Amino acid sequence: MITLSSDFGSPYPAAMKGTILRHSDARIVDIAHDFPRQDVEAAAFWLREVLPYFPPAVHCVVVDPGVGTERAAVAVRAGEHVLVGPDNGVLLPAARQLADDVSVFEIDYDDPGSTTFHGRDVFAPAAATIHEMGVDAFETGERFAHVSEYVDLRFPEPTERADGVAGEVLVVDGFGNAITNVPGEYLAERFGSDVTVNGVWAPARQTYAAVEAGSRLVTVGSHGNVELAVNRGRGDERFSVSPGSRVRLRWTGGGQ
Amino acid sequence: MITLSSDFGSPYPAAMKGTILRHSDARIVDIAHDFPRQDVEAAAFWLREVLPYFPPAVHCVVVDPGVGTERAAVAVRAGEHVLVGPDNGVLLPAARQLADDVSVFEIDYDDPGSTTFHGRDVFAPAAATIHEMGVDAFETGERFAHVSEYVDLRFPEPTERADGVAGEVLVVDGFGNAITNVPGEYLAERFGSDVTVNGVWAPARQTYAAVEAGSRLVTVGSHGNVELAVNRGRGDERFSVSPGSRVRLRWTGGGQ
Amino acid sequence: MITLSSDFGSPYPAAMKGTILRHSDARIVDIAHDFPRQDVEAAAFWLREVLPYFPPAVHCVVVDPGVGTERAAVAVRAGEHVLVGPDNGVLLPAARQLADDVSVFEIDYDDPGSTTFHGRDVFAPAAATIHEMGVDAFETGERFAHVSEYVDLRFPEPTERADGVAGEVLVVDGFGNAITNVPGEYLAERFGSDVTVNGVWAPARQTYAAVEAGSRLVTVGSHGNVELAVNRGRGDERFSVSPGSRVRLRWTGGGQ
Repeated sequence: MITLSSDFGSPYPAAMKGTILRHSDARIVDIAHDFPRQDVEAAAFWLREVLPYFPPAVHCVVVDPGVGTERAAVAVRAGEHVLVGPDNGVLLPAARQLADDVSVFEIDYDDPGSTTFHGRDVFAPAAATIHEMGVDAFETGERFAHVSEYVDLRFPEPTERADGVAGEVLVVDGFGNAITNVPGEYLAERFGSDVTVNGVWAPARQTYAAVEAGSRLVTVGSHGNVELAVNRGRGDERFSVSPGSRVRLRWTGGGQ
Repeated sequence: MITLSSDFGSPYPAAMKGTILRHSDARIVDIAHDFPRQDVEAAAFWLREVLPYFPPAVHCVVVDPGVGTERAAVAVRAGEHVLVGPDNGVLLPAARQLADDVSVFEIDYDDPGSTTFHGRDVFAPAAATIHEMGVDAFETGERFAHVSEYVDLRFPEPTERADGVAGEVLVVDGFGNAITNVPGEYLAERFGSDVTVNGVWAPARQTYAAVEAGSRLVTVGSHGNVELAVNRGRGDERFSVSPGSRVRLRWTGGGQ
Repeated sequence: MITLSSDFGSPYPAAMKGTILRHSDARIVDIAHDFPRQDVEAAAFWLREVLPYFPPAVHCVVVDPGVGTERAAVAVRAGEHVLVGPDNGVLLPAARQLADDVSVFEIDYDDPGSTTFHGRDVFAPAAATIHEMGVDAFETGERFAHVSEYVDLRFPEPTERADGVAGEVLVVDGFGNAITNVPGEYLAERFGSDVTVNGVWAPARQTYAAVEAGSRLVTVGSHGNVELAVNRGRGDERFSVSPGSRVRLRWTGGGQ
């Protein structure tokens, strides 16, 4: 199985699929091709959330603002999974979620004819090769060289405060839910009570439908993090936040 | 074969696919993941139109405004098809189109870790289980209990009038065609003549291209219902209608 | 393998997939369903770019402004590939790219119940039949009749000038890159120098990242043609062009 993720929109991913299918009869599963353009952090977040639900697979990821520059191409082994993509950190948070033991290999690729579509000309062929060869791909030492230096990416950690916690918005999903870096555990014991978010009152509830349509709430999303939301509406707009915005949660102690 | 339908946009459906693929090697086919958000009627309409073209399959549907509340999860047997989704009526119009004999089973599910992503944590696993077990899933009586009470959904019926018919817009498709609940039979004998729609004159024609680009027409869509359209344009805007709008058709008797 | 391409958006392509899957267990691969609406030239361009990356397949293409009129349905053999779609030229540029030897067959189809959804009622069944029968489909002479007259489509050729080249924009991709009909060879020797585009200065560079974010450049895209672009921005807006716009490139001789 090979999964595909990119910020390419359409129809460019089809050329990646064709390239893979000329070299492999792997099942191909699209993760998403509408990741925010050239936003390495957002893609890294979503991959960390989604890939752990998959069985062992080769995950080909192309969110690559540095395409055409000297940045390396890497394959990351994480247990029985392999992630393939540019050396910009996008693969690492998901890889660490998939396995405790992570190894990074630099991909030795021929300079493709195109300098602007490495998804088709570099990453898709590498994913197909790894899928066909399995772990042997890394053991011959020919095309994949183990490296100890590579670009890493870690999400910012929230800071615990006396009266709450300070974090930030990592991504906004398509519903407008503003997903923060604050672990849901902070909120889990406060469901039913009220909090403030950047000074604005909001009820902490376990599910969107616990407040009326159009009303704001703070909840824990399916990813396990605290989320600023509006039932049947957009939390990002109502809380005036976007990716990178600081989020100061205070436990006000108010009850339902 | 398992089909997937939702209003999730991207990338949430990928987590459903991963979940299924850990438990099944079923072929997965996306119906759509951009159904209008939390619009149970629109999803029910499209499923009724599209699913009958499929061979026997398990159809996993998640348009679920009540996620996290007490609403049940159901599996609906319709001939050789099974539909899985929330108990809000979204499955029933398609099920009745697929088979005369429809049975509803409540799904006994463990409370998932997440209260906001039942698509991944409840419906996808149930669909995979049903796909792997086949009809036996319903005969053990363990996880799926036959029920006679469930939420149903029926589309409004049009009303015949002396000089025409009164109906309403059910959905607007991506082209801007406003699809009504009026069966195409009403219009079929009038192609070539003129009608009025809410008092506005429009030619009744068998195909978009029968009028000039940019001109309005009333036609019968591929779903068999009367449709308010504009050749190479948006019918909803030109006829000033949206889902739920009343549509009064009058046969004016004018000819081509 | 059957690939699907259309301008249908969602969820109409699902009905095509269901129809195919009732008659075939072919692997189905989506090329795109968001081609610009009823834009035969744009679809023809993208198919010519993408299909050559695929292994032999049946390619079902529905961008069909003339649906419901007398236009024929055709199947085009191009080496081991077959393209199926309306007789409006959309298949021919890709077919010629796939093989030197191209044959066109008119599809004899029963008038479908629907006059507005030939994708589901004519082209999908024809693609499934061809997939199942292979080349025999064309040799029985029953449903597919060889024809020598059909609608062709060729992209405009650029004109070489003393001080540069005159061409036009063929399509704009989702990133906003304006893709011209000027072959990349014209630019390949000028990377690092400057040109003017319709009188506006722009650096000719091999890759987007060679200029600062937000800066314009002229480059050669992955399709091999000259492209008007902005690093991490939209080239079509910055250069004030859209499909069909004339593009006059002048070599100014300025250096980096």
